[in-house]
Amino acid sequence: MKNNNNDCVKIIPLGGLEQIGMNITAVQYDDNIVVIDCGLSFPEEEMLGIDLVIPDVTFLKENIEKVKGFVITHGHEDHIGAIPYVFKDINVPIYATKLTMGLIESKLKEHGMLKTVKRKVVKYGQSINLGQMRVEFIRTNHSIADAAALAIFTPAGIVMHTGDFKVDYTPVYGEPIDLQRFGELGKKGVLALMCDSTNALRAGFTMSERTVGATFDKIFSDNKNSRLIIATFASNVDRVQQIINSAVAYGRKVCVEGRSMVNVIEVAENLEYLKIPEGVLIDTEAMKDYTPEQIVLITTGSQGESMAALSRMAANLHRKVSIMPGDTVVFSSTPIPGNEKSVAKVINELGMKGAKVIFQDTHVSGHACQEEIKLVYALTKPKYAIPVHGEYRHLVAQKEIVMSLGYDKENVIIAKSGDVIQLSQDKGEITDKVPTGSILVDGLGVGDVGNIVLRDRQNLAENGIIIVVLTLEKYSGQLVAGPDIVTRGFVYVREAEELLDEAKAIVEDSVQLCMDKNISDWSKIKNTIRDDLSEYLWKKMKRNPVILPIIMEAQL
Amino acid sequence: MKNNNNDCVKIIPLGGLEQIGMNITAVQYDDNIVVIDCGLSFPEEEMLGIDLVIPDVTFLKENIEKVKGFVITHGHEDHIGAIPYVFKDINVPIYATKLTMGLIESKLKEHGMLKTVKRKVVKYGQSINLGQMRVEFIRTNHSIADAAALAIFTPAGIVMHTGDFKVDYTPVYGEPIDLQRFGELGKKGVLALMCDSTNALRAGFTMSERTVGATFDKIFSDNKNSRLIIATFASNVDRVQQIINSAVAYGRKVCVEGRSMVNVIEVAENLEYLKIPEGVLIDTEAMKDYTPEQIVLITTGSQGESMAALSRMAANLHRKVSIMPGDTVVFSSTPIPGNEKSVAKVINELGMKGAKVIFQDTHVSGHACQEEIKLVYALTKPKYAIPVHGEYRHLVAQKEIVMSLGYDKENVIIAKSGDVIQLSQDKGEITDKVPTGSILVDGLGVGDVGNIVLRDRQNLAENGIIIVVLTLEKYSGQLVAGPDIVTRGFVYVREAEELLDEAKAIVEDSVQLCMDKNISDWSKIKNTIRDDLSEYLWKKMKRNPVILPIIMEAQL
Repeated sequence: MKNNNNDCVKIIPLGGLEQIGMNITAVQYDDNIVVIDCGLSFPEEEMLGIDLVIPDVTFLKENIEKVKGFVITHGHEDHIGAIPYVFKDINVPIYATKLTMGLIESKLKEHGMLKTVKRKVVKYGQSINLGQMRVEFIRTNHSIADAAALAIFTPAGIVMHTGDFKVDYTPVYGEPIDLQRFGELGKKGVLALMCDSTNALRAGFTMSERTVGATFDKIFSDNKNSRLIIATFASNVDRVQQIINSAVAYGRKVCVEGRSMVNVIEVAENLEYLKIPEGVLIDTEAMKDYTPEQIVLITTGSQGESMAALSRMAANLHRKVSIMPGDTVVFSSTPIPGNEKSVAKVINELGMKGAKVIFQDTHVSGHACQEEIKLVYALTKPKYAIPVHGEYRHLVAQKEIVMSLGYDKENVIIAKSGDVIQLSQDKGEITDKVPTGSILVDGLGVGDVGNIVLRDRQNLAENGIIIVVLTLEKYSGQLVAGPDIVTRGFVYVREAEELLDEAKAIVEDSVQLCMDKNISDWSKIKNTIRDDLSEYLWKKMKRNPVILPIIMEAQL
Repeated sequence: MKNNNNDCVKIIPLGGLEQIGMNITAVQYDDNIVVIDCGLSFPEEEMLGIDLVIPDVTFLKENIEKVKGFVITHGHEDHIGAIPYVFKDINVPIYATKLTMGLIESKLKEHGMLKTVKRKVVKYGQSINLGQMRVEFIRTNHSIADAAALAIFTPAGIVMHTGDFKVDYTPVYGEPIDLQRFGELGKKGVLALMCDSTNALRAGFTMSERTVGATFDKIFSDNKNSRLIIATFASNVDRVQQIINSAVAYGRKVCVEGRSMVNVIEVAENLEYLKIPEGVLIDTEAMKDYTPEQIVLITTGSQGESMAALSRMAANLHRKVSIMPGDTVVFSSTPIPGNEKSVAKVINELGMKGAKVIFQDTHVSGHACQEEIKLVYALTKPKYAIPVHGEYRHLVAQKEIVMSLGYDKENVIIAKSGDVIQLSQDKGEITDKVPTGSILVDGLGVGDVGNIVLRDRQNLAENGIIIVVLTLEKYSGQLVAGPDIVTRGFVYVREAEELLDEAKAIVEDSVQLCMDKNISDWSKIKNTIRDDLSEYLWKKMKRNPVILPIIMEAQL
């Protein structure tokens, strides 16, 4: 019989669609679980004060004896960033290619976990056995070197995952994607393909990373008399390599600013993914020994992130670098949706300081466009297509692409976090749901900020807070101090003395009423104060601040 | 002598560059001031809880005897929105074309000011005398009908202002822009031109509004079996007209949702700027009497605004309309920078509810691109070019366009809010600065939320608040209640009992220490509490909440 349990493989996304970037997917065959990636996500706008978002891996913890290992596709935050958090509770080996592992190790080191987490570097073409499954790492291209697709061999069939990928026939570092292996596996028969959807709305082919190098050469040649400041993603090692290549060709020294940029360059240079000729890299402090036209500064902040080096330079807040009239600033990136306004703000600030800003033809994407997605499907011909990576509209766009290739609707599966996709040769469907979720990281606190706290922060942010304090005598319940009113984020007190006096009178009346009625239940007193004050403020100002009555008990 | 005071005209932007959208510009000749537009701006992300931003018109109030009137270019919020606020303190006549005045009156009515503000409707080609100046309204095209450029005739020369404009040879309503008059005035000699820079970064020509009509026809024809929901800007009356035209052609009934949309349609229909055949418009409640394919719903929310009708439909929060599988939703707009992510969110939610989303070729801009800007300069040939409307990078882009036409750098003036641009035939320069600023509107409060309150809101939003309350006896200074700790937006209390117990112990120690040292100065006690608690929390959690110690005095 084909449909017994042994013939099924289960694919369970544990993050992703609900929290973009938090990439982590369990692949289960019988009592064996392999986990693909372990990414973090950056907070949505409404997650006030949150630093990071990591996946809730309760499902893995509850099935820990089945989990054989984590296989990581590449070294970007949205694929490795949650490792230090998740591996506090889970200890199974991590498998990854060399640069990916270098970046993981740099993270583990920061968290003092380098000794406790088992790791194994894997080469392209190499397979690792994980219980009844075998995982092969296949060369791909992306905006970081050493990216891999995964072929997971199970008794129920081959499950493939592209990771983040593009097809680059002329990559800056290493070889083009191993399309032959994709074809070979396709010929053997692939049960399911999880394919990157990030650019599924974009027609055509993504350009080669190498094309950006030509643009850099032109920028260096056109701006021989300016200092050059180039902002890009810290993790795009190939981009940095090309800037360095142009710097060498045009005889400039290279400075690097931004903590993540310095960190990635260090890891990549140590592992020889970045080739920097002796004497080219100089300390930012040494910049003063050179004229502006002898310098190129590579920096973080291409997304207008307010704390990144470029934004601080533009706002005159950077410790070491100030923007000077005549500087040429290059944005070697495209704004990620949501960042357009911050980027524009930085461009305006740079312009006001007299800098020239260039942002055309200085970036190519690291993700496959529609024709590349078709190519991968044409090579692998999976029975089931499972679009991954991207918002819902991107997954739908990939579904449409796949259907245009002749696939039945039923064989293209869009899953939400926690959906258990059960696949066999006969049938592919969502059969179950496991618990998943987002855990918010705020400072050192992991998971101690939840919806209630966020809702409070939202209210505080929009309306401020009014605190009403009063002290009652323990035995008699008589008012011995207050009520006093203190506000924060509500109105500028000097402008609103009259209002606050009236508010105080309202509260005094509320308290007096409670006293007169001999109400001794504190929660009733608090509710009376809150209701009366809230009604007054809405009527008077159409505002709705958080009202927090605090009653203290004095023992005399 | 040419350079005596009488030969100079002053142009003073009172808002704009620092707060995009807040368009208001004073033109002064001798003791005569004419004010162009009176717009409001929507709050920047960091202006937490703020509803609107209006200009500080202290300069006008201080020179009120010189202010002869306000001339308004068109009826968009960023040109008329601040009128009800500004005209509380200033009462001079407003001049505008018919539809513009209709929209102004609808605002004044809402604020109960219809009787107190003097108004005069002006026709294209008509001039009004304002002291020693004369202002002529010239026909232009924009994304709303009745837009006007202004020619201000002063003894020192003609000052022109394009307003927001585009060149549309085939407008939906009315006639094309009066290019002949631009040319005629240019021949007479124009001293200065203030020209719209919004699209100065875009090459080529803006397409005619009419091209969108063809797209609508195709969408109606391609989606005969779906309900159609079309989101666009409430103020784009011509867009609404074209949707109605297609609805009539394809036999659909039209519903309208969204307060501002209903309002604008009412004004435009009353003034006959919108032609809706009898029986086409139906109440949303009546939708149930028709099949989905007999309906087109026009709605607000094309920018993903969370409170707008479309966003509420997508989130299942709309009172009357739910998205159904099979609905076709058209975004007839382009996201304004900063809104991309909200728009994507709504698209994803619509997709998850089974709706098809269309957003290609369904919008054209209302602003002139580079070739149109060149055309207007070629016609008017002003001595001085003063780019207006747009961020700094847009003004710089217009400057580059103008310089490509052969202008000297010195004759293109980019001014900040408050800069006094003094122009004569001999010289154009910024000579002075007048006070300007942004006034924040929160609910009914105008100007009572300033930087201190916003900073508090920001801190509260990111870190929450810890309130420490204690009561001291009036005469002895002895502690009679507390210290108690209450938090909001800090941690979820049930998860952090231990932490809060420790925090309480810290505070108790601080207070005890003050008591032991006989410190009776409340501010010293408060500072001790704040410092000790803050140090503990940063060490323990790397967090920095607002710490608010409150001391009460009990009289026993």
